[in-house]
Amino acid sequence: MYVVDNARLQPATLPGIEHRTLAGQPLGMRQLSVWQQTIAAGQATPPHRHECEEVVVVTAGRGELHIAGRVERFGPNQTLLLPAGVDHQIVNTGEGALCLTAAFSETPVRTRLPDGSALELPWAS
Amino acid sequence: MYVVDNARLQPATLPGIEHRTLAGQPLGMRQLSVWQQTIAAGQATPPHRHECEEVVVVTAGRGELHIAGRVERFGPNQTLLLPAGVDHQIVNTGEGALCLTAAFSETPVRTRLPDGSALELPWAS
Repeated sequence: MYVVDNARLQPATLPGIEHRTLAGQPLGMRQLSVWQQTIAAGQATPPHRHECEEVVVVTAGRGELHIAGRVERFGPNQTLLLPAGVDHQIVNTGEGALCLTAAFSETPVRTRLPDGSALELPWAS
Repeated sequence: MYVVDNARLQPATLPGIEHRTLAGQPLGMRQLSVWQQTIAAGQATPPHRHECEEVVVVTAGRGELHIAGRVERFGPNQTLLLPAGVDHQIVNTGEGALCLTAAFSETPVRTRLPDGSALELPWAS
């Protein structure tokens, strides 16, 4: 399968987050995952880190990236560059939904909480 | 640097294609590249392949993916899953611009023509 219709993928959720895995091991990929997420106004990801690099393209909305003791503000048509193994949190600070497309350099994506324990996600990554 | 303003990146071009490298080795990444491209109406990429996997998220426009002897049609909010080492070509068959965000599981991205020769791109990847 070469073409995926994103809207036909069954979404998964975390509180305040709607998620779709556009590409990854469940769809036959070996090296790369791509996620599409919508974070509702006033909501945020949990603080977490990945074993691989992550690039987030912001397609709509505004937010803050909390990383390495810093707070970086961002908006539409900006990109977040997230090194492997560094804790981060994405917070929707806008009035509307925050829409993100995130790429990862491994599949499945290994995710950990700041205490080092594995974060079990409710979606195949 | 954690946040990139895509609109401030200097675009590079191939005939009919405007390109920005949103993430990759030039911006400090080690494992992942992300490109943003706009292909004008009636234009296409050259046939080519990469040494790594590629995922293309279609943000606007319509086109055809030519791959492995097949022609797959696609439109907005669809995703193309491209295995490593397989020749492909993306053709804009719509009336407007075809807008793509592409992720690659290596940086820089090694690109070859169907005859196996290296395709030297006019952008840092």
